[in-house]
Amino acid sequence: MQVIEKFLKENEPRFVRELSEYLRFPSVSAQPKHRSDLTACAGWIEKHCRQLGLQTRLWSTPGNPILVAKTPRVAGARKPHFLVYGHYDVQPAEPFELWKSPPFEARIEGRSLFARGATDNKGQHFAHLKAVEAYRACGVELPCDLTFLIEGEEEVGSNHLAAFVKKHRAELRCDGVVISDNSLPSLKHPALTYALRGIVALEIRLDGPARDLHSGLFGGAVDNPAMALCQLLGKLRDARGRVAIPGFYYDVRPLSTYERRQMARLPYDERKFKKLLGVPELFGEHGFTANERRSARPTCEINGLTSGYQGDGSKTIVPSWASAKLTFRIVPNQKPEKIRELIEKQLRKLCPPTVRLTIEAGHGGDPYFVSPDGAQAQAALRALKSAFGHAPVLLREGGSIPVVNDLKKILGVDALMLGLALPDDNPHSPNEKISLDAFAKGMRMSAHLWQELANITRK
Amino acid sequence: MQVIEKFLKENEPRFVRELSEYLRFPSVSAQPKHRSDLTACAGWIEKHCRQLGLQTRLWSTPGNPILVAKTPRVAGARKPHFLVYGHYDVQPAEPFELWKSPPFEARIEGRSLFARGATDNKGQHFAHLKAVEAYRACGVELPCDLTFLIEGEEEVGSNHLAAFVKKHRAELRCDGVVISDNSLPSLKHPALTYALRGIVALEIRLDGPARDLHSGLFGGAVDNPAMALCQLLGKLRDARGRVAIPGFYYDVRPLSTYERRQMARLPYDERKFKKLLGVPELFGEHGFTANERRSARPTCEINGLTSGYQGDGSKTIVPSWASAKLTFRIVPNQKPEKIRELIEKQLRKLCPPTVRLTIEAGHGGDPYFVSPDGAQAQAALRALKSAFGHAPVLLREGGSIPVVNDLKKILGVDALMLGLALPDDNPHSPNEKISLDAFAKGMRMSAHLWQELANITRK
Repeated sequence: MQVIEKFLKENEPRFVRELSEYLRFPSVSAQPKHRSDLTACAGWIEKHCRQLGLQTRLWSTPGNPILVAKTPRVAGARKPHFLVYGHYDVQPAEPFELWKSPPFEARIEGRSLFARGATDNKGQHFAHLKAVEAYRACGVELPCDLTFLIEGEEEVGSNHLAAFVKKHRAELRCDGVVISDNSLPSLKHPALTYALRGIVALEIRLDGPARDLHSGLFGGAVDNPAMALCQLLGKLRDARGRVAIPGFYYDVRPLSTYERRQMARLPYDERKFKKLLGVPELFGEHGFTANERRSARPTCEINGLTSGYQGDGSKTIVPSWASAKLTFRIVPNQKPEKIRELIEKQLRKLCPPTVRLTIEAGHGGDPYFVSPDGAQAQAALRALKSAFGHAPVLLREGGSIPVVNDLKKILGVDALMLGLALPDDNPHSPNEKISLDAFAKGMRMSAHLWQELANITRK
Repeated sequence: MQVIEKFLKENEPRFVRELSEYLRFPSVSAQPKHRSDLTACAGWIEKHCRQLGLQTRLWSTPGNPILVAKTPRVAGARKPHFLVYGHYDVQPAEPFELWKSPPFEARIEGRSLFARGATDNKGQHFAHLKAVEAYRACGVELPCDLTFLIEGEEEVGSNHLAAFVKKHRAELRCDGVVISDNSLPSLKHPALTYALRGIVALEIRLDGPARDLHSGLFGGAVDNPAMALCQLLGKLRDARGRVAIPGFYYDVRPLSTYERRQMARLPYDERKFKKLLGVPELFGEHGFTANERRSARPTCEINGLTSGYQGDGSKTIVPSWASAKLTFRIVPNQKPEKIRELIEKQLRKLCPPTVRLTIEAGHGGDPYFVSPDGAQAQAALRALKSAFGHAPVLLREGGSIPVVNDLKKILGVDALMLGLALPDDNPHSPNEKISLDAFAKGMRMSAHLWQELANITRK
């Protein structure tokens, strides 16, 4: 292991250059204009895997291509097989003007590498690839067979992954899944994540007058769709920060005392947290701590509002329509289908007869929960400790990784979630970055992990 | 008068061509990029006035130029002097995609001329100019001295007009003001408008996190500025359609029984009105008719909403900020300054501590009210009758013409408001048009008006 660690350390500058090249592709899956950039990005990472000695195949789907890259199997050897999941697509970079440097030209400042996708998720799965490179370059046999599964539609709901995995179930059968697509509280708190929030996304639109109306000539005699939208959306969250939809909390698994105690171990400084986010005051569901609110409690968020005139100056109109993008984070054991029904029912109930409501369903994802006592989880905790030099913590995470549920359903195995994103990495925001220290420790953790996992499987 | 009417009729096709040329200028005062188009448009109408034999001068201001064009004074003759007001600036044409033909390329369909500014206001003041042309071309002496005052900032609050009129008070002193910048219920209901609504415009912005946040990582622990905006704005209007701001209605002059009876004379068909506007149901302040609501009652309108991600697909963020453009229509005897204070006070009171509120004051305009019994008003009613062939109605109008109040304050005279816009002319909306019949009758009305006004002044 020492020789591998030495190789990883010595070659880090080259790895960062390679990652920077990978980050040049504006592989924004939400925006149709970037379709060809996604294909080009997939081609680049396939070629890179091939150069590392992996056996690769880029599969086309009705959406973006999926890369499968395997470490060469040694004839006769019976090694444990793990699937490493990642995604090469990224969130939109808008608003561009808030980036300190172009989002698709990676920039290093201190021990940070800035670019869209740096931490979510190119940098994180790249760390696992570099661990494989280290084993091969140092002539050390990999103790596990690995299959990298790297898709291009994670940010838009992984629409074609489940069907792909089903179709290739035999080839992808494995002893477990490893995913680094989430975060750790600090470099001193390496973390294993045991629960995730799910998501329900939708877009609503209220149509009023057939066209924008002069607010002087007609204002007062017709409803204003922007006002109707505000009044409708405003009723979805109550003054105590709870989602005000009947039945919404019915399936929520209450936090146990043990879990709340684990959560209280995490570093948290309200003043620093407020400063990090730049908010004047925190806000959330009464009766829960900030860490609980953002990882273990469901939410209703407005992601975008659009109505009427948004240019310079004023325009005295009653706008013809108003729309909103919404996402609800859900927690174990809420079901996205059921929650979506409850939301739509409440929206239709609240919508006044003066406007026409259209609801467009977006993506959905189940929450995830697994007990952290298993042998693989314990092996992962040891790998974290070796690589980071600190006792790892157990985490619930607020984001969604819908693929975790898909892989569990189809392949019947749980996932080890070993995130490398720091709290100030700005995923989904301008000036996204990855910490080069987290990247370096992530590569070491990956190298240790295969050893630890092989040990327990051998027993 | 017959020879003048004949000339107007025979030359109408040429007048429409000239008006179409005037409508080619995208003289959008709200958008800085159109600054040079405004100058070019002002130059065009000045040149046109000169060609009609008017004595013109284009005055520069800190904003857009103001045109003063006078009919030549006859030495020794003591004629009554009237000021004709108009504006060559127009509303933004957005959203462009809803126009059936380009907004700045006038298109005739049947008896309609489509273009941004066709009815608001280029077509309306152009009708008055053509009446002057008719008098001169027919060799009939104009019974009044006229001064056309045509500005370029009406759609952004006429910021430099009042100072200009003050400075040129001596030259502009007159017996009355004539303004055609509003509407009539139908060609069978020519109208004199005796009251107008005023306006208070403002823009508010709520700032939350310093940047867009990943809604999975942070959602639940911070307020969502878009949700805060919806909850704030939603509280500005109650379920009975009233503006929910303490003190807002205190100065509202109640509608008299006579006024309500006048208003009930106006043509109104709820089914047709709903169809015209394209709304599923009407909505407004309880206890008032649709015509009362849109002309004699104050309102709160959201003109635009902006927050977060508005592109294709979804983006799972807590947006950093949310903003809204608002206008409040006010009625006699509300004062814009006082109403603005009440609004701002309520917004600050309702704003939660979790976001930072910024209020940017927009333009304001007083409401207007004048009794329709005076001699000039009666003369105008006779001119309307002669030109349209129908008994005129008395109107309160829902739009603002702030200049009416400014001219009254500075010059001490009332305004005759003789609108030529039909209810389906779409001012401020896509596919704005002017009815060529209204344009033709407007020219005749203008020709009659100077005769009628000269008669009463002579008495």
